[in-house]
Amino acid sequence: MSRTLTAQLPQHTGQRVTVQGWVHRRRRLSQVAFLVVRDRSGLAQVVIGDGTGRRQLDALGEETVVSVEGTVVANPKAPGGAELTDPRITVLGSATPPPVELWRPALTAGLPALLDHAPIAWRHPARAAVWQVAAASLRGFRRALDERGFTEIHSPKLVGGSTESGATVFTVDYFGRPAYLAQSPQFYKQMMVGVFERVYEVGPVFRAEPHDTVRHLAEYVSLDVELGFIDDHRDVLAVLRDVLAGMIDAVRGGAAEAGARLPEVPERIPVIHFRDALALVGADPDEPDLAPEHERRIGRWAVREFGSDFVAVEGFPARKRPFYTHPEPGDAGWTNSFDLLFRGLELVTGGQRLHEYADYARALADRGEPTDAYEPYLQAFRHGMPPHGGFAIGLERWTARLVGADNIRRTTLFPRDLHRLTP
Amino acid sequence: MSRTLTAQLPQHTGQRVTVQGWVHRRRRLSQVAFLVVRDRSGLAQVVIGDGTGRRQLDALGEETVVSVEGTVVANPKAPGGAELTDPRITVLGSATPPPVELWRPALTAGLPALLDHAPIAWRHPARAAVWQVAAASLRGFRRALDERGFTEIHSPKLVGGSTESGATVFTVDYFGRPAYLAQSPQFYKQMMVGVFERVYEVGPVFRAEPHDTVRHLAEYVSLDVELGFIDDHRDVLAVLRDVLAGMIDAVRGGAAEAGARLPEVPERIPVIHFRDALALVGADPDEPDLAPEHERRIGRWAVREFGSDFVAVEGFPARKRPFYTHPEPGDAGWTNSFDLLFRGLELVTGGQRLHEYADYARALADRGEPTDAYEPYLQAFRHGMPPHGGFAIGLERWTARLVGADNIRRTTLFPRDLHRLTP
Repeated sequence: MSRTLTAQLPQHTGQRVTVQGWVHRRRRLSQVAFLVVRDRSGLAQVVIGDGTGRRQLDALGEETVVSVEGTVVANPKAPGGAELTDPRITVLGSATPPPVELWRPALTAGLPALLDHAPIAWRHPARAAVWQVAAASLRGFRRALDERGFTEIHSPKLVGGSTESGATVFTVDYFGRPAYLAQSPQFYKQMMVGVFERVYEVGPVFRAEPHDTVRHLAEYVSLDVELGFIDDHRDVLAVLRDVLAGMIDAVRGGAAEAGARLPEVPERIPVIHFRDALALVGADPDEPDLAPEHERRIGRWAVREFGSDFVAVEGFPARKRPFYTHPEPGDAGWTNSFDLLFRGLELVTGGQRLHEYADYARALADRGEPTDAYEPYLQAFRHGMPPHGGFAIGLERWTARLVGADNIRRTTLFPRDLHRLTP
Repeated sequence: MSRTLTAQLPQHTGQRVTVQGWVHRRRRLSQVAFLVVRDRSGLAQVVIGDGTGRRQLDALGEETVVSVEGTVVANPKAPGGAELTDPRITVLGSATPPPVELWRPALTAGLPALLDHAPIAWRHPARAAVWQVAAASLRGFRRALDERGFTEIHSPKLVGGSTESGATVFTVDYFGRPAYLAQSPQFYKQMMVGVFERVYEVGPVFRAEPHDTVRHLAEYVSLDVELGFIDDHRDVLAVLRDVLAGMIDAVRGGAAEAGARLPEVPERIPVIHFRDALALVGADPDEPDLAPEHERRIGRWAVREFGSDFVAVEGFPARKRPFYTHPEPGDAGWTNSFDLLFRGLELVTGGQRLHEYADYARALADRGEPTDAYEPYLQAFRHGMPPHGGFAIGLERWTARLVGADNIRRTTLFPRDLHRLTP
């Protein structure tokens, strides 16, 4: 008998069907007992009446994998409005009691227990729903870009040189010589603009930053976008707007289960210049960056003025941006770059990049860096590159913001940090 | 004036439009000159008549990025059936002559030159079309699985222990202690079957195998699938069949340009047992594996008997398969695993896995391996796992087979091997 998902039971009332899943919970009352089976679509209640079934139920510990043949009976009180009666239960996979109580509506285990037992803890429906938000976001991200003529790329994670000066990289023993783990696909996505004009990549990036905070990981999934033939960073921001709208749309179906509060994405994301942002929050006009409290106040301002959860701050000072950042025309102290704040926190960094080889050579010289190490990458700029720009979104931070997680580790399947390399 | 793609020109006959792209080629005849502009959609011919335009054309080296405003005129002899006249040309990005001749119908440069100048060489339309086959395959892969209730996952690439015994791994300096680069997401996708039942991952895998061959890379993109609640490996093969059909469908549009010869995927992929395959090719019945010549002969047999470019060999001897492979019921010398041959070459390996903790403990003991190192992974099996299995496809090999590339490096954007870490 082919398998029926628990969510489909109401469509099979009166029929004999087989459901398969995990023993989520057992409830043994004096007259009757219930077995709740969990599968990827939800929960189903199985009614167990007689003595034989009862004895079998006693032997079925939580998380045992079972196949249950039974008759579908409508019952408004059962999850989904239908339950199984007259069951015949077969064990497909045995189980010892799980280290976290998965049947409780909320997981009460602390973060270390959740992470140590990640393969089990993610089975909790509320946890699984959080990852489904991440997976749906990826679907929405790709769909929005596919519809706009972008090409998916995959760039190498093993690189011969550090990809961005100053940042901390992991070193790999590469057949006896040193290689490094890519901190971002930045240079590669730019090179590929020279080929496909509009590209994106979803892949791991690696940061050997010894930060032990709720928002840093040593490895995370970066959603990278880069596009050519732009006028300036505002064209990049317009694509970012559409991508965010596509991601939110894709998440909508499973948002409630994951506790996600979804924002509206305005037709046009409000923009404020860095200089004006400093003035708005009453900061020193020579401040090179925004403090977290500044970001929160700008976020509140955007809600007040534009009814928007999103606001872009553009024009960041050149000294705080990477060397490939395009200056603001007319005033090279500022840049054609932006940070996108979502509910008062920085979510995305993006902007226009330099596209002339001579400008790269000058920018590196100004920072006292030799161009030699960058030559394999700079060859794209020697041989014709259009004005271009892009942005990157960290998947785990994005999900954490949507579901209101207090720690990025709660939205990463198997987080890696200063202290954790397993499971 | 907003940008028009070159492929859209025929829809704008008589209108004044702007195209943007690279100077692909210049042809200077006595009476007239032509500028061929390349953008992501194709080529457009620009007619240059007067002396001023002619002098400007002389200054526009190949690969210069230009914006060309012109009038669209139908011309059956022009690429796409339309050309631009009365042009006004603006330079968007300057260029020195490219290291490979991109305007020639076929790139004549040797493989080392192609790889050294990858950022430029990929601009050649025939090269770009090859990567588009890869990108389309990824789209088809995900679509087929999304439609079948699979969830996308992202597993860590930095791991605390070697993920598969015996194979060679890259070592990373992880905050002062050793970590390893994951050779496959095998264990993680299995654990996630315990959560989502059906999962897939597209991501890099790393192999420190010092093989200098046309089919080995130190880093490649693995398309991984794993699903629970199967009867045996034949259910895995059925999903693989649907995934391959989805990938081929997605590739169809751009196949010709990339020189790809697409196979038909039969409704049911023919299967032959390893034992019978040995007999078929007249090999010693004690052979533990198939030689390349055997694979080619089995491939020809499948074409002859079933008209199929695909054939699965099932039942491989246990001693040649990883410890997590499920034995064949009734004869533990064979396994519920398969290799899928495509045109006489192994393309995909898959099969059913063990799902009981006790079976893992026994399998590891039989191979003389301690279970301790595997415990973080084995906890999923202690707490209830369904019968499951899966497969993995290497993206670069897949593309190479479709387009008939003689070296996997020709289907990898930036290949990594024993000798190459840049660009």
